[in-house]
Amino acid sequence: MGERGMRAGLALVLLNTLALASAAAAADALPSWNEGAAKRAVVEFVTGVTTAGGPRFVPPQERIAVFDNDGTLWCEKPVYVQAAFLLERVKALAPQHPEWKETEPFRSVLAGDLGGVVAAGEKGLVELVAATHASMSSEEFAALVRAWLAAARHPRFERPYTDLAYQPMLELLAYLRANGFETYVVSGGGIEFMRPWTERVYGIPPEQVVGSAIRTRYEVRDGTPVIMRLPEIDFVDDKAGKPVGINTFIGRRPIAAFGNSDGDFEMLEWTTAGPGPRFGLFVHHDDAEREYAYDRASAVGTLARGLDEAPKRGWTVVSMKRDWTRIFPFE
Amino acid sequence: MGERGMRAGLALVLLNTLALASAAAAADALPSWNEGAAKRAVVEFVTGVTTAGGPRFVPPQERIAVFDNDGTLWCEKPVYVQAAFLLERVKALAPQHPEWKETEPFRSVLAGDLGGVVAAGEKGLVELVAATHASMSSEEFAALVRAWLAAARHPRFERPYTDLAYQPMLELLAYLRANGFETYVVSGGGIEFMRPWTERVYGIPPEQVVGSAIRTRYEVRDGTPVIMRLPEIDFVDDKAGKPVGINTFIGRRPIAAFGNSDGDFEMLEWTTAGPGPRFGLFVHHDDAEREYAYDRASAVGTLARGLDEAPKRGWTVVSMKRDWTRIFPFE
Repeated sequence: MGERGMRAGLALVLLNTLALASAAAAADALPSWNEGAAKRAVVEFVTGVTTAGGPRFVPPQERIAVFDNDGTLWCEKPVYVQAAFLLERVKALAPQHPEWKETEPFRSVLAGDLGGVVAAGEKGLVELVAATHASMSSEEFAALVRAWLAAARHPRFERPYTDLAYQPMLELLAYLRANGFETYVVSGGGIEFMRPWTERVYGIPPEQVVGSAIRTRYEVRDGTPVIMRLPEIDFVDDKAGKPVGINTFIGRRPIAAFGNSDGDFEMLEWTTAGPGPRFGLFVHHDDAEREYAYDRASAVGTLARGLDEAPKRGWTVVSMKRDWTRIFPFE
Repeated sequence: MGERGMRAGLALVLLNTLALASAAAAADALPSWNEGAAKRAVVEFVTGVTTAGGPRFVPPQERIAVFDNDGTLWCEKPVYVQAAFLLERVKALAPQHPEWKETEPFRSVLAGDLGGVVAAGEKGLVELVAATHASMSSEEFAALVRAWLAAARHPRFERPYTDLAYQPMLELLAYLRANGFETYVVSGGGIEFMRPWTERVYGIPPEQVVGSAIRTRYEVRDGTPVIMRLPEIDFVDDKAGKPVGINTFIGRRPIAAFGNSDGDFEMLEWTTAGPGPRFGLFVHHDDAEREYAYDRASAVGTLARGLDEAPKRGWTVVSMKRDWTRIFPFE
């Protein structure tokens, strides 16, 4: 072995040592994950893409990870948090709208008849969004969301909804960022419903939040410029809309995607179809005791095709029951 | 003065020293800017928002700066670079479309009659965009843009268009980033026309580029997932569209905005109407010798209202002729 060969050999030993050290540090970075296949898959992926000179190395600027929100980062049962917000907004606004008592879908909301709300379909949902989420500025809407989240409590856990982020996922977000990843939320939920609190709860700043949106318009209102929220849907960031939202907002294909339902299928498919190391993961809600158990038969957060295809596509499925030692930070 | 007062006094001296040191470093960071009011305004603003404990301090996560592209970061004459791309694409595709010889606006493009293209108006422009920018995947379009930029030459400077970024603005981008700013492009140009090269030319990654967009759709094409570009305008990121684009993509109000035309007026207005320290700047093209001279009477890059209102709104106007010692990096 010549001097150059020795130097190369030493460099390799050093790199392997660093990789092992990184993997060891990783184990500590995910204390709420049980040792098992899911954690091992995460750590191996991150170790691979961060090992300089290794065959799976990915430069930091390409380390983009995308996370669904509802059911992946925080609890989505018994209803989406944004749906709870919407229903309570209808009740709060009802005194100004006496006609709502006789008009669907408002009548059903006020009567507490969720079946009636669902029966009103997409048209009813758009009307509810228009009545509760629009005709105010973006800043006014953000203030409403903040005030509501500060006061509202989850019906089962009796805590603020923002306490119901999953501790293992918070650890995963921090672990990825510590390894040079940019972490994005890519959610079917409203982009301006999430941005007021994702930085505080997930460490994800507003500019790394992608979501569904209503149309907005710039106006100078009484001499003050505002962004007005219009009663019209602009973009639905769900299913095949997720890769579109990723491409529009981020402009790079992620190398890792995390979801919990078939609404995330295309996001995982798009992410993992790219060249080089890729990672896809579904959170499987199978823990009725500590959280909720649902998959194929659930109207919200349906996971069927994802469960069927995960093995052959090389995606990881996390069992909340077996893989996570803790669900929520407050436990 | 008690011990606490002395400590506070010492801390103040230290902070002022740091601020002065920072200002001195700044002067070196902008070597292509002549000493004068414009440079002084930039350096004072940056020094103020980065001086910890000072009255104008802004935390790093809120240091968002937005830049128009055409005419602000690179040359937009004699026509927008993207227009040159579009015109050459029509010529390249013409053999497959014999009917274009008889059909406006294609006939005018092929005849080199720019007046005829302009006469075809917005409808004509949409048809040209549809014919040249759509019906392919985002990745295919990015490859076309890269290949064209590698081969195309500016008619006057006889260099690649990407050589025609303004050296003083490249220094400004780097200076802002060195001071904890995130720098965004917010352009009326196509988002996917810019993303393939902004990182290399400006140091601005794809996820910090906001622009006009056509609609896209996620498809699995012969087993491979793609983002397809559809022949339909989705969003025009110009004039009142710029604050909308900023709010949608970034979700925070910037504290500094840089433009060169009335198409940037609302972006500067929205940015500088926020509370706390704010900065607005127009680049004024008044150097026919080294670049071009145009403002009120120009069809492209019209600057009239901006010139009129800059003084009373506290916005800085840069004279390319007097304030910049160099225009292009190759000088």
